[in-house]
Amino acid sequence: MPHELYETIHRRRDVRGEFTGAPIPDEVLERILTAAHAAPSVGLSQPWDFVLVRDPRLRRQFRDHVETERRVFADRLEGEAAERFSRIKIDGVMESTLSVVVTYDADRGGPAVLGRHAIADAGLYSVCLAIENLWLAATAEGLGVGWVSFYREDYLRSLLGIPEGVRPVAWLCLGPVTHLERVPDLERHGWRRRRPLESVLHADKWGNPREAVLDLRG
Amino acid sequence: MPHELYETIHRRRDVRGEFTGAPIPDEVLERILTAAHAAPSVGLSQPWDFVLVRDPRLRRQFRDHVETERRVFADRLEGEAAERFSRIKIDGVMESTLSVVVTYDADRGGPAVLGRHAIADAGLYSVCLAIENLWLAATAEGLGVGWVSFYREDYLRSLLGIPEGVRPVAWLCLGPVTHLERVPDLERHGWRRRRPLESVLHADKWGNPREAVLDLRG
Repeated sequence: MPHELYETIHRRRDVRGEFTGAPIPDEVLERILTAAHAAPSVGLSQPWDFVLVRDPRLRRQFRDHVETERRVFADRLEGEAAERFSRIKIDGVMESTLSVVVTYDADRGGPAVLGRHAIADAGLYSVCLAIENLWLAATAEGLGVGWVSFYREDYLRSLLGIPEGVRPVAWLCLGPVTHLERVPDLERHGWRRRRPLESVLHADKWGNPREAVLDLRG
Repeated sequence: MPHELYETIHRRRDVRGEFTGAPIPDEVLERILTAAHAAPSVGLSQPWDFVLVRDPRLRRQFRDHVETERRVFADRLEGEAAERFSRIKIDGVMESTLSVVVTYDADRGGPAVLGRHAIADAGLYSVCLAIENLWLAATAEGLGVGWVSFYREDYLRSLLGIPEGVRPVAWLCLGPVTHLERVPDLERHGWRRRRPLESVLHADKWGNPREAVLDLRG
């Protein structure tokens, strides 16, 4: 059984509050980015780019934008949900060592990307596979990753000079952490609980009893 | 350095021709699906489902549809590209042990999914992170995975009875393999070569020289 991989997959967290800001050695950063770049991609198009944002001024501008979007979301909530959300930290942009912005270039490998003619989003999917590789590699290296999604794509494109036709997919905070929490933040704060695996399994056709899929013990 | 994780990430391939059809022990399948289900998700929404397709009749129907879509793509190609594509196997639907269809349910965790108000596709991104976890876990377990994307979403929805509002994201062939190729199929067949990491790195702003990012040796 591949213990290290499973340990990494289950220990991985979406980090907000535990970044220390300590430096990341170049060779560690290179291994992590090389792992991301080794992800599968439709038609071998490798349609991702990685913008490494260290500049504190850019990060502060982004963080201020995130705060604005936080208020937009908070204004939609009422009662207990509003109260719970008020306790939840949604980013570690300023506390983490650096940020990695991951983008999608739909033109790369074109015009005829093998495997994308029927599913336009297949290239976007590839970018996400690279993000998960990055996340697991960072976790295994003892770092934390936090995916910030309280932003507007147009704002981020303008902030970093990302060309039209290239789509920002993720803003990832990256860096050493004091520790990784055992339970996800949103579960610890009572926002939402994780579902059991059985609830998302189907046999042959949608809705067929999960028992037919495999014998899930415990 | 986390050797097992990096070894798995770099050994992973998108498999078409190497499936043996041998059975997968239930406990291995359970570990792989549990790894997929442990992926990060926006607002802890876990918006994925997994339909395990073993029924040979359903798989044959899907494979026939894939063949139709293969011809649609082939008809767009000319000259050398058409010739190269004719040599490339695009699926292992019938040869693999089973297929896992991964879907996205946008309503799960709603109506206010934390972190999704500004980026509608964030839920779709989460599903892809689960797919990469599944892919790496299967690779580490000695199995192969092949993502088939020559299909129309409506066809697949209808074939498996997937409800409106749930979107098919991937058809994954899964099972034991004779071996994993060292070089991706599309590179071996001269369709496309992998890009160097340096070509996708930017420092602070798009287009800033990659040398500023990190010292990439070799």
